Amino acid sequence: MESRNIRLAVIPGDGIGTEVVAEGLKVLEAVGTKIEPTHYDLGAARYHRTGETLPDAVLEELRGYDAILLGAVGDPSVPPGILERDLLLRLRFEFDHYVNLRPVKLFPGVETPLADTAAEDIDMIVIREGTEGLYAGTGGVMRRGTPHEIATQESLNTAHGVERVVRYAFEKAQSRPRKKLTLVHKTNVLTYAGDLWQRTVNRVAQEFPEVATDYCHIDAASMFFVSQPERFDVVVTDNLFGDIITDLGAAIAGGIGLAASGNINPERSAPSMFEPVHGSAPDIAGQGKADPTATILSVAMLLDHLGLHAEAARVEQAVADDILERLTGWAGRTTHEVGDDITARVSG
Amino acid sequence: MESRNIRLAVIPGDGIGTEVVAEGLKVLEAVGTKIEPTHYDLGAARYHRTGETLPDAVLEELRGYDAILLGAVGDPSVPPGILERDLLLRLRFEFDHYVNLRPVKLFPGVETPLADTAAEDIDMIVIREGTEGLYAGTGGVMRRGTPHEIATQESLNTAHGVERVVRYAFEKAQSRPRKKLTLVHKTNVLTYAGDLWQRTVNRVAQEFPEVATDYCHIDAASMFFVSQPERFDVVVTDNLFGDIITDLGAAIAGGIGLAASGNINPERSAPSMFEPVHGSAPDIAGQGKADPTATILSVAMLLDHLGLHAEAARVEQAVADDILERLTGWAGRTTHEVGDDITARVSG
Ligand SMILES: CC(C)[C@H](C(=O)O)[C@@H](O)C(=O)O
Ligand SMILES: CC(C)[C@H](C(=O)O)[C@@H](O)C(=O)O
Repeated sequence: MESRNIRLAVIPGDGIGTEVVAEGLKVLEAVGTKIEPTHYDLGAARYHRTGETLPDAVLEELRGYDAILLGAVGDPSVPPGILERDLLLRLRFEFDHYVNLRPVKLFPGVETPLADTAAEDIDMIVIREGTEGLYAGTGGVMRRGTPHEIATQESLNTAHGVERVVRYAFEKAQSRPRKKLTLVHKTNVLTYAGDLWQRTVNRVAQEFPEVATDYCHIDAASMFFVSQPERFDVVVTDNLFGDIITDLGAAIAGGIGLAASGNINPERSAPSMFEPVHGSAPDIAGQGKADPTATILSVAMLLDHLGLHAEAARVEQAVADDILERLTGWAGRTTHEVGDDITARVSG
Repeated sequence: MESRNIRLAVIPGDGIGTEVVAEGLKVLEAVGTKIEPTHYDLGAARYHRTGETLPDAVLEELRGYDAILLGAVGDPSVPPGILERDLLLRLRFEFDHYVNLRPVKLFPGVETPLADTAAEDIDMIVIREGTEGLYAGTGGVMRRGTPHEIATQESLNTAHGVERVVRYAFEKAQSRPRKKLTLVHKTNVLTYAGDLWQRTVNRVAQEFPEVATDYCHIDAASMFFVSQPERFDVVVTDNLFGDIITDLGAAIAGGIGLAASGNINPERSAPSMFEPVHGSAPDIAGQGKADPTATILSVAMLLDHLGLHAEAARVEQAVADDILERLTGWAGRTTHEVGDDITARVSG
């Protein structure tokens, strides 16, 4: 990997996506990696121009890259679901990003909305399944628009899909000092899916005797994220619960401007994709108000995934230092300024 | 209603359920209502003894009451889902409790885990649909226990089911000073169900021109509950999202010990059921540690539902006063002591 250039596909997307991705790339170049970025103009603008979301030919081209950096997709001018399903979720599905890795970590110096909470209380990794569950998109509608309309959504869960992400989560837990894994689900209501998840955790647990396993209903977990975040070390959960709980995680760890994520294909049979957890935020787009830190932290995850651990650590350290400076009143910077400041730390 | 006794079915249930219900009844008697309570021993003990969860004959008997007071059901000795589905959810379904009313209100004097949040910032009502969605229980499993297992869960949403709860939510919003209604869903992923919910809100909104309507994805809503709870006045959402967000609501409003709920049948074709949001908490059962306040507030909702508005207000005021006293260090009371203190205020 180090001998040749990293071929990176860049999908800035919509709204603030383009703004934050520009800063992410700046940092990526400054850290001294040889990257060869190629931009793809997928998103709302292209959809309006050509009706395309993700043409098959583009999908196949993307398959050839080492990794993908994505900003955010979605715009109020496009009906809900189109860009999300046909672009973002399609990439996650086609490239088998079954591990959606989302650290929830309070950096020292960041203001958390939680009272009486210290940085060491919030340090977990949520591992969200990324390719099935309610995101499968199956379901339908009958008698639409009539008083007899029925609309259904289906959650599809397979032994194959659950086991591989659970195994990944155990490995992650095994590698961390606390070695604790919590399954978050709703086994008392979603009894079929919950039973599969719980049995799988129980079975795989036998291969990881050092890891302590725990279970928490999604409703209770949401409460504990706020009242006792220190309960959690590694959390494994399904696609929808993971979606909800990682936004909540972002909130307790100082805001969506800092939350990074990786859509990982651990077998590397297709490129993994890195993106901030936040959306395209059309309300603040084009104003230089977006915090690019989440994207820059996603870039650190990308470097790590590609085996460039030292570079990843340097980016993370630069972010941590930058955040610490905020304590001294260094707020109100533009998207560019934050990017420049972190870039300077990475190069210097 | 005032001329005759209130016929109340009482289902203490499991764990701390029995402890908190005793205090709720004490307050109910002290407030001067003529109630005639009949206890039903449904829950884990009966299940173990007879294998029964909710016999049909008992269900029919319950139908004849004016209201039901429930503690909590569920015990680790019973496989997950059995008591929940066959007892609690069955009651909600059979009695058509399509409005699950859950106030999220920070009482003055309560410590919220959120920094910089004043009591007036958290004052909303979540209206959770109670009879359909993923709680329908449909779904299944194939090839269980093999590497080819598939487990499914289905979310069922009907125009009938969505419209009636949305209409109720608009009426509630109309009656409040802020007159704001937020739909919480995940329309960009659950496109069939989300489309039905969003279209229904748009249509019913036309009948309520004074109510401002808003939309928020469940993931963003979870974030905003923590970072900007003042965004919300009345929230309407589906069964599962409502389950999650009301536990989160309980957390920000000072804990699950204070969160009340009503499972309402607005047409009164069957008795409504009132219960604390918390579960049976087997870990602290039998120790006098449970806070009965959530049950006592549920009793206030019950009185209100039965048209006993003055009595309801007195119970609520007694709770508010009791909570304010906690500020002065009046913590560490047992379940009984809290019940006694509130009872004294209600009678005095
Ligand atoms: C945009 C949306 C489809 C997406 C999701 O629900 O997965 C987003 O919320 C996320 O968490 O990455
Ligand atoms: C016990 C459980 C089935 C129930 C639910 O999920 O509705 C509970 O969490 C609640 O919120 O009342």
